[in-house]
Amino acid sequence: MSHDIRASELKQPIDVAEYLFRRLHELGVRSVHGVPGDYNLVALDYIPRCGLNWVGNCNELNAGYAADGYARVKGVSAVVTTFGVGELSVLNATAGAYSEYASVVHIVGQPSTVSQKSGMLLHHTLGNGDFNVFANMSAGISCAVAKLNDPCEAATLIDHALRECWVQSRPVYITLPTDIVQKKVEGERLKTPIDLSEPSVEAEKEDYVVDVVLKYLSTAQNPVILVDACAVRHRVLDETHHLIQKSNLPVFVTPMGKSAVDETLPNYGGVYAGDGSNAGVKERVESADLILSIGAIKSDFNTTGFTYRVGQLKTIDFHSTMMRVRYSEYPGVGMKGVLRKVTEKLPKLNVEAAPPVSQNKIPNGELDVSKDSPISHAWFWPRMGQWLKEDDIVVTETGTANFGIWETRFPKGVLALSQVLWGSIGWSVGACQGAALAAKEAGNRRTLLFVGDGSIQLTAQEISTMIRHDLTPIIFCICNEGYTIERYIHGMDAVYNDVQEWRYKDLVPTFGAKPDKYKVHQVKTREELEAFFQAEDSSQVSQLQFVELYMPKEDAPAALKITAEASARTNAKTQ
Amino acid sequence: MSHDIRASELKQPIDVAEYLFRRLHELGVRSVHGVPGDYNLVALDYIPRCGLNWVGNCNELNAGYAADGYARVKGVSAVVTTFGVGELSVLNATAGAYSEYASVVHIVGQPSTVSQKSGMLLHHTLGNGDFNVFANMSAGISCAVAKLNDPCEAATLIDHALRECWVQSRPVYITLPTDIVQKKVEGERLKTPIDLSEPSVEAEKEDYVVDVVLKYLSTAQNPVILVDACAVRHRVLDETHHLIQKSNLPVFVTPMGKSAVDETLPNYGGVYAGDGSNAGVKERVESADLILSIGAIKSDFNTTGFTYRVGQLKTIDFHSTMMRVRYSEYPGVGMKGVLRKVTEKLPKLNVEAAPPVSQNKIPNGELDVSKDSPISHAWFWPRMGQWLKEDDIVVTETGTANFGIWETRFPKGVLALSQVLWGSIGWSVGACQGAALAAKEAGNRRTLLFVGDGSIQLTAQEISTMIRHDLTPIIFCICNEGYTIERYIHGMDAVYNDVQEWRYKDLVPTFGAKPDKYKVHQVKTREELEAFFQAEDSSQVSQLQFVELYMPKEDAPAALKITAEASARTNAKTQ
Ligand SMILES: Cc1ncc(C[n+]2csc(CCOP(=O)(O)OP(=O)(O)O)c2C)c(N)n1
Ligand SMILES: Cc1ncc(C[n+]2csc(CCOP(=O)(O)OP(=O)(O)O)c2C)c(N)n1
Ligand SMILES: [Mg+2]
Ligand SMILES: [Mg+2]
Repeated sequence: MSHDIRASELKQPIDVAEYLFRRLHELGVRSVHGVPGDYNLVALDYIPRCGLNWVGNCNELNAGYAADGYARVKGVSAVVTTFGVGELSVLNATAGAYSEYASVVHIVGQPSTVSQKSGMLLHHTLGNGDFNVFANMSAGISCAVAKLNDPCEAATLIDHALRECWVQSRPVYITLPTDIVQKKVEGERLKTPIDLSEPSVEAEKEDYVVDVVLKYLSTAQNPVILVDACAVRHRVLDETHHLIQKSNLPVFVTPMGKSAVDETLPNYGGVYAGDGSNAGVKERVESADLILSIGAIKSDFNTTGFTYRVGQLKTIDFHSTMMRVRYSEYPGVGMKGVLRKVTEKLPKLNVEAAPPVSQNKIPNGELDVSKDSPISHAWFWPRMGQWLKEDDIVVTETGTANFGIWETRFPKGVLALSQVLWGSIGWSVGACQGAALAAKEAGNRRTLLFVGDGSIQLTAQEISTMIRHDLTPIIFCICNEGYTIERYIHGMDAVYNDVQEWRYKDLVPTFGAKPDKYKVHQVKTREELEAFFQAEDSSQVSQLQFVELYMPKEDAPAALKITAEASARTNAKTQ
Repeated sequence: MSHDIRASELKQPIDVAEYLFRRLHELGVRSVHGVPGDYNLVALDYIPRCGLNWVGNCNELNAGYAADGYARVKGVSAVVTTFGVGELSVLNATAGAYSEYASVVHIVGQPSTVSQKSGMLLHHTLGNGDFNVFANMSAGISCAVAKLNDPCEAATLIDHALRECWVQSRPVYITLPTDIVQKKVEGERLKTPIDLSEPSVEAEKEDYVVDVVLKYLSTAQNPVILVDACAVRHRVLDETHHLIQKSNLPVFVTPMGKSAVDETLPNYGGVYAGDGSNAGVKERVESADLILSIGAIKSDFNTTGFTYRVGQLKTIDFHSTMMRVRYSEYPGVGMKGVLRKVTEKLPKLNVEAAPPVSQNKIPNGELDVSKDSPISHAWFWPRMGQWLKEDDIVVTETGTANFGIWETRFPKGVLALSQVLWGSIGWSVGACQGAALAAKEAGNRRTLLFVGDGSIQLTAQEISTMIRHDLTPIIFCICNEGYTIERYIHGMDAVYNDVQEWRYKDLVPTFGAKPDKYKVHQVKTREELEAFFQAEDSSQVSQLQFVELYMPKEDAPAALKITAEASARTNAKTQ
């Protein structure tokens, strides 16, 4: 290497790759997802040296999904891919993290800056000498892009990107060319933690908004709180719970906000999603005269096809970087500060009780658990709720599972992961790997996955990664002969909604699990599922378990049926 | 639907989706790859009506790879995905088709134009009302983009995109919003086939170039022909063979051009790739005083790490839309016309013989087939060449297989598929599905796949699609404990180059193959492989076969070792 004047002036020179991975460690990352490639191999050598664990996924899309799942449990995650072939495979996962607000750091090993400058005809290029095409593709789905082409600015770019990733709760894209990996940057910088504080707010303006909120709140007759996804992703659950507890107001969650609120609280009222709401909830929420809506994302699948009926005149919207009271907007004022101050100054409120929430009560007409009764959604989801334990992590896939889970009331501390807005099938298997790994690092939480037989086929191999890392999720694969959710939208009997019938539970040994490390089950009736529940010492997570859970092809949660009908109508709309 | 004046004026109104699929049928497509999603379901209903077969892949990336493989056999292919989640999953495959020149038509089912205009917060969006982000991402890796937002221009846009796809031999991107699927276009247009002719060339200019070529050719002392990938992808193999046969010049292929030339021709001389060339070839090619280089792509992996040593002063470059004679460039003159005319006017040439080409001779020192001798690359690839049959389709994956195949001499009519430039691992499994389906449609060609144990893990589930459609490829999975090619670049013993050990052959029954529909084999020694070769009635392709082929972890083809070293050097280069 030529003599580097700059490097010799550094007080504590460390390599760019080391700097990057130490910063990730500082943010709480302990495992790095991804797939090797010759443009990232040298960088991978730094991972163990920085106290990190390399996951080594089966493919990049799955790695991206896993990083998403890991980020939702640990707050942030990282995925490393190689130029072109690797990074493009992960785009769908990155777009999902962008859409759904997950803090994923995507690091791409690139050809050396020297090769890039000379436009060499390298493998993994388009053959046209253009090394920017792929970065441009990522730019639209990343909240920051850091191209580490120059060691002088590398540390600054890294710190900036990681801050944005955390604060905006969205993915960032970092390129790491092979010749930059071992270039030196100032190690002393690491003594100062990255600034992750909220953007500062003008106090007078914030107080003004707080007063407006308090004014409406104190005069309301029967206000309620509605908590949605951004409350989770923008990390205001503590503030939200303080408000819930001090105010005693009835509180509801949206499907995307599921598990944001402690569902054992006496004022918890259930899931609100317009026509698909839990029993009694729609009436209660829509008759409230004020809704404190925290972190809302009013998408089609989060509102049972836009059947959400809450007028803006009755709404106060809390968002990460803006507030809206009726039609008055306050950009630059974020919910975190406002929630804190509102709770602090809270006057005595008019509180009308929430409707009594179902304690995972099996509906009448579904009580039969006799020998041959098939497993219906109406029965299954409340029954599953009875079996869940505190602090479980519950991952549900787009399909019947994502709607069924609305009917499950969670014990304290449960964390639910799903992709209600982005809705990329296959996501849940990767996300389960990431979540289960995060859960293992965090102690010994159980991770449960509910995935359809269609969805699992997209990403099944990530069960191999779970096995490789001795993760012990319980995987429920809903076997219902194909794409049930799609059947309800269009093509109930269409061949394109069928899937090849796999021997799903054989995936586990095929992916190399040792006999004493896993258990598989085939469950076709309520009785068999009851036997499984009884047999399992559910406090124990010593083995990976795979449950083939058979359900009737044309059975679906009620909310799914309404949503699907609405989707079909929207698709057909010609004006 | 409101009354549509325009539609009532059409002579033979047909639906946009029907028009599109009929055009694909006209181009030779018989099967459409892809994955359903609610934004494409209604369009999928048209597929069987237009005489097409729906494949229904396990995931979109695999569908894209399969479409690539299908296109390489049939000339063109189509893949249908759904907005956002589906289309982004396929980008890596599309970029590969762009880089490697495969004619893949990517059709994306989009939300209705009405929803797009009103910016509805739909599933599979980024939540920001921007419906153009994903199309923009595809634009950089597509040679044409057709957004079918208006029925008035839909047919024209479709015809244009399909023409570009064919003529440029690169992917195109077509959006099909849900409300456009059933809009009417003029069906009469279908009576006129799409114009797939080469762009017209000024005759005087072309003749001028032909004369220049002939001048150099007739005075050369020992010219040779070198055929590369673009000769295949731009469909000039007939012209190339006429030249080869009439001229009697020695002919060589590059790795990417493998199978372009009939390897049983007496003047076929082997693979030229600089230092990794077949024995004797480097000397012969580099000592020629004129090289007719047809369709060259001089990438690192196609030249054993840029060890290609053929001066431009000795070279005539034939490209699809330009010719280059020494340093004189002739843009706008394509190789197809020039090849034809050069062959026509060919004078008597000086012909010096090619080096004798190895007839799949096993190298000395590799002749031992005794009980325990492990399967080395040096032994395997020529041995495999002896077993291949005419018209086989041979798919090889990036890794040891892609380099090993240089040492296999093909029978007549063999078609080799690989991804030497793009090099995305996992590609070969999808491509094999597409190729095997195309082979089945075309009669009864055998399809053979050579894939590494690392690569197969990315896309293994596409074996399920092969089973579903009764395809009968012979799959050789090279089990060598992980990423051998990467080990040679960096990290020979690094954990990140290991993979989870699967029970590879159990994949087939796990994906639902019926016992009488497949055979699996485990082959660890030369003797066992000989037994397999003997046992197989290789003329018969009645069953899918899966062979676990064990090779030593640190064994690799010689050309791979040189290429890997060169890559490591290029990566490390700091100026
Ligand atoms: C990557 C991706 N491809 C396609 C789709 C379209 N899609 C949404 S749900 C679904 C079917 C899911 O089937 P399954 O997992 O079996 O769920 P269930 O039968 O329980 O509804 C499909 C194909 C998607 N959402 N994401
Ligand atoms: C999608 C993608 N991800 C990562 C890589 C980097 N890569 C190139 S070859 C390879 C290993 C291939 O291993 P295997 O298939 O076992 O081949 P072999 O052992 O025969 O060399 C990897 C990870 C790639 N080319 N494409
Ligand atoms: Mg299903
Ligand atoms: Mg291998």
